[in-house]
Amino acid sequence: MIRKFTFGNPLSTDAVIATIPSSMDALPYFTSPETGSFLYKMEEDTLIYGLGEAVRGINKRGWIYESYASDDCNHAENKRSLYGVHNFLIIDGKKDLFGVFFDYPARLTFDIGYTSSNRLVITPQDNNLDIYLIESDDINDIVTQFRQLIGQSYIAPKWALGYGQSRWGYKNAEDIRTVVRRHREEHLPLDSVYMDIDYMDNYKDFTVNENRFPDFPSFVEEMKREKIHLVPIIDAGVKIEEGYSVYEEGVHNNYFCKKEDGTDFTAAVWPGHVCFPDFLNPAARRWFGLQYNTLLKQGIDGFWNDMNEPAIFYTPERLTNTLKELGDYCGRNLGVDDFFELKGKMEGLSNADEDYRSFYHNADGKLLRHDKVHNLYGYNMTRSASEAFEELLPEKRILIFSRSSYVGMHRYGGIWTGDNMSIWGHVLLNLKMLPSLNMCGFLYTGADLGGFGENTTEDLLLRFLALGIFTPLMRNHSALGTREQEVYQFEKSDVFRNLLMIRYGLLPYLYSEYVKASLKNKMLFRPLRFVYPKDSRAAQIEDQLMLSDELMIAPVYEQNVSGRYVYLPENMRMIRMRSLKDYDTELLPAGDHYVTIPLDTVVFFLRPNCIIPLSDGGENITEISGISLKLLGYVTDTASYDYYDDNGYEKDYGDPAHYNTIRVTASGNTKVTGERRLELSIASI
Amino acid sequence: MIRKFTFGNPLSTDAVIATIPSSMDALPYFTSPETGSFLYKMEEDTLIYGLGEAVRGINKRGWIYESYASDDCNHAENKRSLYGVHNFLIIDGKKDLFGVFFDYPARLTFDIGYTSSNRLVITPQDNNLDIYLIESDDINDIVTQFRQLIGQSYIAPKWALGYGQSRWGYKNAEDIRTVVRRHREEHLPLDSVYMDIDYMDNYKDFTVNENRFPDFPSFVEEMKREKIHLVPIIDAGVKIEEGYSVYEEGVHNNYFCKKEDGTDFTAAVWPGHVCFPDFLNPAARRWFGLQYNTLLKQGIDGFWNDMNEPAIFYTPERLTNTLKELGDYCGRNLGVDDFFELKGKMEGLSNADEDYRSFYHNADGKLLRHDKVHNLYGYNMTRSASEAFEELLPEKRILIFSRSSYVGMHRYGGIWTGDNMSIWGHVLLNLKMLPSLNMCGFLYTGADLGGFGENTTEDLLLRFLALGIFTPLMRNHSALGTREQEVYQFEKSDVFRNLLMIRYGLLPYLYSEYVKASLKNKMLFRPLRFVYPKDSRAAQIEDQLMLSDELMIAPVYEQNVSGRYVYLPENMRMIRMRSLKDYDTELLPAGDHYVTIPLDTVVFFLRPNCIIPLSDGGENITEISGISLKLLGYVTDTASYDYYDDNGYEKDYGDPAHYNTIRVTASGNTKVTGERRLELSIASI
Repeated sequence: MIRKFTFGNPLSTDAVIATIPSSMDALPYFTSPETGSFLYKMEEDTLIYGLGEAVRGINKRGWIYESYASDDCNHAENKRSLYGVHNFLIIDGKKDLFGVFFDYPARLTFDIGYTSSNRLVITPQDNNLDIYLIESDDINDIVTQFRQLIGQSYIAPKWALGYGQSRWGYKNAEDIRTVVRRHREEHLPLDSVYMDIDYMDNYKDFTVNENRFPDFPSFVEEMKREKIHLVPIIDAGVKIEEGYSVYEEGVHNNYFCKKEDGTDFTAAVWPGHVCFPDFLNPAARRWFGLQYNTLLKQGIDGFWNDMNEPAIFYTPERLTNTLKELGDYCGRNLGVDDFFELKGKMEGLSNADEDYRSFYHNADGKLLRHDKVHNLYGYNMTRSASEAFEELLPEKRILIFSRSSYVGMHRYGGIWTGDNMSIWGHVLLNLKMLPSLNMCGFLYTGADLGGFGENTTEDLLLRFLALGIFTPLMRNHSALGTREQEVYQFEKSDVFRNLLMIRYGLLPYLYSEYVKASLKNKMLFRPLRFVYPKDSRAAQIEDQLMLSDELMIAPVYEQNVSGRYVYLPENMRMIRMRSLKDYDTELLPAGDHYVTIPLDTVVFFLRPNCIIPLSDGGENITEISGISLKLLGYVTDTASYDYYDDNGYEKDYGDPAHYNTIRVTASGNTKVTGERRLELSIASI
Repeated sequence: MIRKFTFGNPLSTDAVIATIPSSMDALPYFTSPETGSFLYKMEEDTLIYGLGEAVRGINKRGWIYESYASDDCNHAENKRSLYGVHNFLIIDGKKDLFGVFFDYPARLTFDIGYTSSNRLVITPQDNNLDIYLIESDDINDIVTQFRQLIGQSYIAPKWALGYGQSRWGYKNAEDIRTVVRRHREEHLPLDSVYMDIDYMDNYKDFTVNENRFPDFPSFVEEMKREKIHLVPIIDAGVKIEEGYSVYEEGVHNNYFCKKEDGTDFTAAVWPGHVCFPDFLNPAARRWFGLQYNTLLKQGIDGFWNDMNEPAIFYTPERLTNTLKELGDYCGRNLGVDDFFELKGKMEGLSNADEDYRSFYHNADGKLLRHDKVHNLYGYNMTRSASEAFEELLPEKRILIFSRSSYVGMHRYGGIWTGDNMSIWGHVLLNLKMLPSLNMCGFLYTGADLGGFGENTTEDLLLRFLALGIFTPLMRNHSALGTREQEVYQFEKSDVFRNLLMIRYGLLPYLYSEYVKASLKNKMLFRPLRFVYPKDSRAAQIEDQLMLSDELMIAPVYEQNVSGRYVYLPENMRMIRMRSLKDYDTELLPAGDHYVTIPLDTVVFFLRPNCIIPLSDGGENITEISGISLKLLGYVTDTASYDYYDDNGYEKDYGDPAHYNTIRVTASGNTKVTGERRLELSIASI
């Protein structure tokens, strides 16, 4: 059951699609100890799930989080905000079980047992918000109800589940050709190459630098012949430049965010001074979205939206004032207080709260100061693109994902988990984020594998990929100036090839589960607790995940080890794959196990009476057969699998022709229902 | 066997005390692929131990480390240098087993399988260095030989193994009184309060602010009556101020580091402009050391030396030039390249390489550019203090520990592991550093428990302390502006009290082992591999340690869990302590175990036929009896323990009266040899 509680006069966020009347009752569970805060008393063992993209554990207890979309690449435990804002929690205690969504677009803090270990205190900036309360006896049902409330998740084209290579620093077509050639020559699977900011003409959105990419449409075609999709980045800020049509149209139509005095607000990012499209203004949103057509027309069919918190390097006024103020320190003998003040001023140049308070949106004629709706900005940028795709190419799926997001944006696109680092802790952090993001509808997601900032190592990249082969978005991405981390840069190319090939082997299963999770409002990755609610050990497992109904994953996230502990809540069959052809399986009883997982091995676990369909692999998505499948399972009695497949780019998800049900008995008898003829073989059951 | 290999004309570091002639042979094991580098080819399974204070694992493979003493509070995986420099490695492979010490005081890099997974490449700046090679069949013997080479480790007074409370921000005597009162009122054990920079008059070394601490000697006396030792901080930089005697004497005697033109080098730290004492000049070193007498005479008997990498906030020239250069950006439209350049200039203000190249030491008349001997600075600051204590109070142990260090400094004082953060990862990082530091002679060491920077949580502090009860230095320290983290600030005061009391219960054992480890050149904390060299699982354990010969520890370092996995290389007896009086024990067979360890519980493991002596606890060190002892052990046959104790402040370690041997049989018969009469009882064997 879902109930809505309205406080004050909330701004519309379009996070929720269902129309629910506000309850006249008092909000249960919570009290309001101070004006504007909501207090819930947790029991000693209460688990708190949610918050989507956030630091720390699957269980969020023991920290204070802040919902305020932030461009901060240091995703350390002590941070409170990341790029996305997902104000959904599930409270899972002995006494209470419920979900709660705080639909509130400004800064919101969640003190989850930080100040006082058993108190959950949620504090908005003002008292205008909607709270949705979702109750059920089944935690999975709470998620499904919430997802029904917020609408069906975006579904990416099938090719976007292939492996993608990215780097800030591929400066021209030749660099990209090299990346593709090296993969193809070495038979390393690849479906896409991402184009970071380098491809643009002076970092102007929707332009292509003609010196670096002469005849871009031909290059896109050339890449298509190589079965490679190019995926350009689009930034939120529009360069201020006379003669640049996007800028001029924006100015002419008042499509940019304004200062209080009604002039266009100017900030600076990659190209220097920019204006921010007012994505909360429906006309501006449509206008900006239609700009993507410039690239669609050149053959592009995928994009990633960046810098849309929005990140602000500086504003011209702040830069001038700061530098003037800094000048006053010149020649002085600065003690600690003055020096820290100086440093603070330097560090305060970017993403300043004051700047976020100094510009306005025009939402259907209503003037909104940015900080009050800050968390909706990236969401509506991606909505802008997605709505345009729907208008321009209604039949076709276009890849789109974003850095910043808010609940609701999951209907329009995916997200990647931002600018992480090449550190081991970020393998585990990514794992922990996955179920939290899935709860909030973000299914098409993944981390920058290998790590974006800082220098990776071969073993880190291998272990990162060994998690990434399970995430819908599987992209290797790194920053300018860091070690080159395409898989061919390292010594163990056979191991990388086998690892990527295992992904392509898993694709029939992963794609089927991914699309079904969207259609059925389910999670792809779940904490163990969601499957084994009575298992107290499972409740504390923070480094394993259930993948759909069939699998459990337990990647290695530490350096210099060749194994790890795994907790099995029930008997499972362990699959230890060195390649699609070279693997062994072992039945393991419920309980604790130390499992050997060398660098060249991927391990996953099959639940009893479950099967998954595998392909024979391939070097890109077009080589993956959805018909000829090998079944891998753990069947003691009978297993049944609902298999979904389609052509990968249309939206006819409901077509019954896309569905088969595969049944297998312990003796290996298979039976398939559904229109499509599958060619099944048993790999191992 | 130890061999010395001399290349070029090395600078003297005084790291080594033994005189060994340089070998005429070629350096074995290593080749020199490029001029100046030393290459060793590792096998796939070769383990690399060492490097003392460094990020990442006990096994250092898979990263590139840089020996260059650095003031960097972000001890993240991607960092290459921390405060201390400890160029000792043990190579532990199937083929080779040896230790190697690179005695080289300038920047030195260790690429341990980073660039190429099986290559260890060590690169100095120039070819003037001594390399010591230590061979033995026993890895423990390699350590002992190395420690004999570098000399006996500093031994702290016994009270310095009591619990200490610290915070940057105790601004006056009243603040400290409150800290003491709260501990005493709530029966929370405490032996010392640390005085951070706030106590000084304008951050001038060896001064006390008379407004904040009127009649300081009386205050020291008052604290002594409370059984509290006050431990002031001393910084490397001496404030430039006319009339300040330390500054004036330094100038007058040419005791400060000089610029190339012979004038005093000026940098800035806490007090603004400072000069750096030239600790490499023996006369300056003695002069600075004798300054500590100002505080010794007021009753102080412990110090910590800080900022001695040396940290440089800025130099006046760099500040002026930087601010001038920044001014040139004013009013400009900066794109990404210019903006990143601007940011780089701002960030380059502190600890600039160029500044370290711009001043000189006068070592026995020889002019040395600082960067060539950078890693010796903190070492010689602490040596300066320690040599003065020896001169002023030869009979008495004075507490002294340092932030920066180099091998050799372990003879003069301890170290704390620098300005860590209140994050869970730093519990584990501290554990991993301990054996590496012990190898290099640093026995008196510990982390800032609860975390220095950022805000702690109650559970983090509890888990941090549960590791800290085993480290000789057990100090809770936090930074200005962070959450207050004295144990009485939190809800679970009983749990904190019990935890601290367990430390005091363990003290007879810990003190005995600590002193013996110094006298016998042994490690207090060892990787499991050192005790179980044939156990391949033990070789990969990075989150458990052997404590001396009797115990294994396995602290919890994750949030929201009430247990962890523990690997037992042999049968052990698990002790699960909620308090000194409330504990249970369980015999566990060798192998893997999931062990429940709630927040209120300390767990450790006793090896077979081992006993340890416990006290009944106490609220400070004077209440701990070294005579009336309870024996806790795991005795199936007979156990024997060599017990050391003394009065805690004299240096007569060789006095046979300090030694007893306690023998216990499985049936509980005890037998004690030694002069001292012990009152033994059996707690549990």
